[in-house]
Amino acid sequence: MSKPRLQSLWMFALLVFATAASASDPLPSWKEGPSRRAILAFVDATTRPGSPDFVPEARRIATFDNDGTLWAEQPVYFQVFFVMDRIQAMAGDHPEWRDVEPYKSLLARDLKGALASGEKGMVQVMAATHTGMSVDAFAAQVRQWSASARHPATGRLFTDMVYQPMRELLVYLREHGFRTYIVSGGGQEFMRPWAEHAYGIPPAQVIGSYGELEFALQNGVPVLLKQAKIGLVDDHGGKPVAIQRFIGERPIFAFGNSDGDLQMLQWTMAGDGRRFAGIVHHTDGEREWAYDRASKIGTLDKALDAATTGGWTIVDMKAEWSRIYPDP
Amino acid sequence: MSKPRLQSLWMFALLVFATAASASDPLPSWKEGPSRRAILAFVDATTRPGSPDFVPEARRIATFDNDGTLWAEQPVYFQVFFVMDRIQAMAGDHPEWRDVEPYKSLLARDLKGALASGEKGMVQVMAATHTGMSVDAFAAQVRQWSASARHPATGRLFTDMVYQPMRELLVYLREHGFRTYIVSGGGQEFMRPWAEHAYGIPPAQVIGSYGELEFALQNGVPVLLKQAKIGLVDDHGGKPVAIQRFIGERPIFAFGNSDGDLQMLQWTMAGDGRRFAGIVHHTDGEREWAYDRASKIGTLDKALDAATTGGWTIVDMKAEWSRIYPDP
Repeated sequence: MSKPRLQSLWMFALLVFATAASASDPLPSWKEGPSRRAILAFVDATTRPGSPDFVPEARRIATFDNDGTLWAEQPVYFQVFFVMDRIQAMAGDHPEWRDVEPYKSLLARDLKGALASGEKGMVQVMAATHTGMSVDAFAAQVRQWSASARHPATGRLFTDMVYQPMRELLVYLREHGFRTYIVSGGGQEFMRPWAEHAYGIPPAQVIGSYGELEFALQNGVPVLLKQAKIGLVDDHGGKPVAIQRFIGERPIFAFGNSDGDLQMLQWTMAGDGRRFAGIVHHTDGEREWAYDRASKIGTLDKALDAATTGGWTIVDMKAEWSRIYPDP
Repeated sequence: MSKPRLQSLWMFALLVFATAASASDPLPSWKEGPSRRAILAFVDATTRPGSPDFVPEARRIATFDNDGTLWAEQPVYFQVFFVMDRIQAMAGDHPEWRDVEPYKSLLARDLKGALASGEKGMVQVMAATHTGMSVDAFAAQVRQWSASARHPATGRLFTDMVYQPMRELLVYLREHGFRTYIVSGGGQEFMRPWAEHAYGIPPAQVIGSYGELEFALQNGVPVLLKQAKIGLVDDHGGKPVAIQRFIGERPIFAFGNSDGDLQMLQWTMAGDGRRFAGIVHHTDGEREWAYDRASKIGTLDKALDAATTGGWTIVDMKAEWSRIYPDP
């Protein structure tokens, strides 16, 4: 073989090798570090045939909190922005709202003022915006909102404030035979209309808080109507309850970011065999928000202690994620 | 080519053709008839690329009632036999039951006597046998029962009284990209331990009636405890409610056998595009049981009228099924 021919073959081989290495990195937004290593090691151990920790594909269940774990949650859960926008859209039909709290404050986009009405006020506002319509009508409202509403600080669509590293993790797990579920304190019917596009998670794998439904025939047409009665609050102890109800078996992998996720992580780790518990720790005040024990939204206190004691994976967003959001 | 050679090639081709035709019959227990034709036509229309009724794989959802649709339900729902067997097993710790109804009748396996205590008695008995333990402990009881208890009339294990034609239908649908769900008035936690083996349906796709659960730490170990409070009665209007809650989208294919399935079938048929509603009609008093409008168990009255009016598929078990149960 001539020398130039050999050289170009070498160049070609190197190029192929470099491309393959870069194309095959399943977690490009995760920097080399303890969290990335822990994830890769767990997936290898549970999915490689012959591994002592091998788990059959049907039993590979992974559950994820949503607010603060898969997308941002500051300065307040994004569903609250949906509520404010709905109140604004409905205000024309409710002139009485102009002088009554918490509507008055919400119309002025004054969150602190609105929160002053306490839980009773919040229940009223949730009933006004989330009940009394069919599930189809509500889903249409959410779809319209998620396609147009923007976050006040970043100017992004809320669905463009999902965490790119977590999206890569979801894809990586699914490519290794895991079923990925959302288990969120947020509204189930609020997440379903956009979760499939944002995360690749279909409606049946979106678990959240929900109100009761009622079946009725309207002029012979069957409808499901959203009722003003709470069915499940999918937070704290409600998360393992919801997991049993909807999935019927214990996850082997779970990710959260706050004390509301502690019981889901405990439930996951208490099963037999190798397991993974992860916490997204919000350490990046520049690219995102930095908060943990003292924050009212996404309080991470007891779960941080449990993670430290238990040797769970604590993701340092600032140090371990090369990017936060996807390209819009 | 020599004549003998040609002949043997023909023979070979015919043999291959015959074998393929027989091996490829996906519904061997369904005789040629209207129900078989309707099923094959629907699956072809919704799954053949280029068909005007084509449905993407992610949207192919099929829901099945259980009692009387996937397995038998006479002389009484099989879960009632589980209740009687549990009461018997627990009676040693409850000497007071010997003289109190409905326990006294249940211990004598006198169903009529037990039913005389009405709904209040049944609620008591359900609480005694279905609550107060962890979900894991209950699942273990069900597994033990389903592996040993036998039907008084057939002598078969209850799980050997599943309908072979319906099992073939489940497999056939899954091979064409459908997700198959159980949506049953029976207990969700009662069905899950054996449904994967009996029907190939995993726990997450088993929807049924359920009671509330509570999360607790017992000596630091997380448990889910079954509570004596009803969460959902998955029957009549509760079926479409449960479908929305658990699946989050409308089925395109549904099968039932009684008035308790009417709303699920209506909900399925009211969606856009091509749809399928099926009714198992119990017409075979020799190989199974013959009953419809007048039966207390599995009453088929309004749903039979709706099926006739709507042109739904009504399966004549006696005429259309070549066998009822699988080989034990």
